[in-house]
Amino acid sequence: MAKKPIIGKLSGERILIFNNDGISRLNAKGYGELNDNFLSLSIIEGLYLLSKNWIKVKLNNKYLSFEELHDYAQNIDDKLCIKYLAYRDLRNRGYTVKTGLKYGSDYRVYSRENIDEVHSEYLVKVFSEDKPCAISELTGFVRVAHSVRKKLIIAIVDDDGDIVYYNMGYLRL
Amino acid sequence: MAKKPIIGKLSGERILIFNNDGISRLNAKGYGELNDNFLSLSIIEGLYLLSKNWIKVKLNNKYLSFEELHDYAQNIDDKLCIKYLAYRDLRNRGYTVKTGLKYGSDYRVYSRENIDEVHSEYLVKVFSEDKPCAISELTGFVRVAHSVRKKLIIAIVDDDGDIVYYNMGYLRL
Amino acid sequence: MAKKPIIGKLSGERILIFNNDGISRLNAKGYGELNDNFLSLSIIEGLYLLSKNWIKVKLNNKYLSFEELHDYAQNIDDKLCIKYLAYRDLRNRGYTVKTGLKYGSDYRVYSRENIDEVHSEYLVKVFSEDKPCAISELTGFVRVAHSVRKKLIIAIVDDDGDIVYYNMGYLRL
Amino acid sequence: MAKKPIIGKLSGERILIFNNDGISRLNAKGYGELNDNFLSLSIIEGLYLLSKNWIKVKLNNKYLSFEELHDYAQNIDDKLCIKYLAYRDLRNRGYTVKTGLKYGSDYRVYSRENIDEVHSEYLVKVFSEDKPCAISELTGFVRVAHSVRKKLIIAIVDDDGDIVYYNMGYLRL
Repeated sequence: MAKKPIIGKLSGERILIFNNDGISRLNAKGYGELNDNFLSLSIIEGLYLLSKNWIKVKLNNKYLSFEELHDYAQNIDDKLCIKYLAYRDLRNRGYTVKTGLKYGSDYRVYSRENIDEVHSEYLVKVFSEDKPCAISELTGFVRVAHSVRKKLIIAIVDDDGDIVYYNMGYLRL
Repeated sequence: MAKKPIIGKLSGERILIFNNDGISRLNAKGYGELNDNFLSLSIIEGLYLLSKNWIKVKLNNKYLSFEELHDYAQNIDDKLCIKYLAYRDLRNRGYTVKTGLKYGSDYRVYSRENIDEVHSEYLVKVFSEDKPCAISELTGFVRVAHSVRKKLIIAIVDDDGDIVYYNMGYLRL
Repeated sequence: MAKKPIIGKLSGERILIFNNDGISRLNAKGYGELNDNFLSLSIIEGLYLLSKNWIKVKLNNKYLSFEELHDYAQNIDDKLCIKYLAYRDLRNRGYTVKTGLKYGSDYRVYSRENIDEVHSEYLVKVFSEDKPCAISELTGFVRVAHSVRKKLIIAIVDDDGDIVYYNMGYLRL
Repeated sequence: MAKKPIIGKLSGERILIFNNDGISRLNAKGYGELNDNFLSLSIIEGLYLLSKNWIKVKLNNKYLSFEELHDYAQNIDDKLCIKYLAYRDLRNRGYTVKTGLKYGSDYRVYSRENIDEVHSEYLVKVFSEDKPCAISELTGFVRVAHSVRKKLIIAIVDDDGDIVYYNMGYLRL
């Protein structure tokens, strides 16, 4: 993908791609949601692709730097930083990563390129290691994942920005 | 064990049994630690055995009610209540339960009557569902259990006092 | 480093630096974690650098005072104050100080500038002298440090805010 | 020492031995304090020697069982149980153990039979692992031991009644 960056246009919480070649290149790698006339990326996808120099992001006829897009996203999602770090790590490991909102999680993850299959393999929720969390956030996550029969991943970002992955599940004694 | 209650004497954070018949009956069931001249129970063991009417607990020539012993223990350990609920539940399921302090956990658990085997099967840490917890408490617990090659149990006491058991572990992606 | 303060942006539990010159100056001194597009500082690093006037910290287009950042951090970590005092003292003595969370401690410490070496020299856990502590917190710390073959430091903050350092270890009798 | 038990008389907080042969046998092993006409044992020494069947303890012309002497001692010292467990363990390892009261500690310990030397090797303080302790109890102990130039031992009795020994000291950074 060492080609010329694809132009995306920032529109509210999405980044839209109208160029057909760009749409098919990004879609083939599992980025964005396909609409009739355009592909729409989440801002976290946009940050990742911008950091790789695969896209450029335009707002009001001006290209945004990584920092400007990050500032913009920060105002929308205050959990942005750790979510971005986890997204980047999972993508760098070769997984396809989509939003997990409809399952009350941060991401759903498909094993390498297998996104055509109906079901994601994992639901992912991201936590910061140095911030207290309600135990019920974890138990609720286990309950949801169990009820939709998906495996879950707890991604914990430590103070060094490293990410460690854990599973968790019910135990029958 | 529907015999006459065994007399235990409260001594600081331990309950001591001096009666030989009582010592052997309790020891056979995995309660207490055997010394040359006495068996010593932890206060949580004492609470459980008192609730079953297997022992009576004496302090200053007076027998303590369950409530009095619970108050006494509460002053020593403010996590007492949820730890007791988990202890009781595990014992009622037939497990032998010993302190897990030397592994940084609340309990180590042996499968039914199998305490003669050298190694406990599980390390248990007890949490209250509605209390925030430091994520590092969970990750530290996984690290310790992993390093001593034991399975771990996260016991979560919910608002109804019910206990749900979870496992947790590293995930290799 | 008597240059113009570097701008950092507060993002959840991290402070992000996007300026290239700032990134390299801070990174050279062992502050923060390097990502593709930015350097991310922990809030305690941020507090220290803010107190030295090396950085300024921005939230919603407003610069935070030391007090405002401290308040913000206090809400995330109620052990903040004594941890900050220990961090500052160790840094002022010339040590490089990073999070110790993955070893169940507060910090890991590298001797002066030696952070390129693979292994930290010490694990540090910070206590307040006038607050009761569970003995098992100390024994657990000794166990972990022993198992990863690192020296440990118990940093005790007294009522005057002074810090005294102790070692502790197993004794073979 | 598989001889006939020596008779001791319980007198307040001491157990007195008047028999000359008994005095010299016990004194040679480092038990008790020698007076003009008798040897006086602490109650913890008495419990230990009673458990070994080396002495019998008389009160009002009646011999006390181990349990009765333990009850008696419990009323005087509510830290009795863990102090006794530590005393027994140190003695069983071959150390000579004397009270450490004048150094604000529980015991002073002499290496095997070396009690003729002027200085004890260690000061010992006993803690229960499952009871919170004031950090200042530990730091005060380090300060005292340092000022009298003695090594210190922190003896921690866990919930299983096992004893683990730790050292602790100032660290110059």
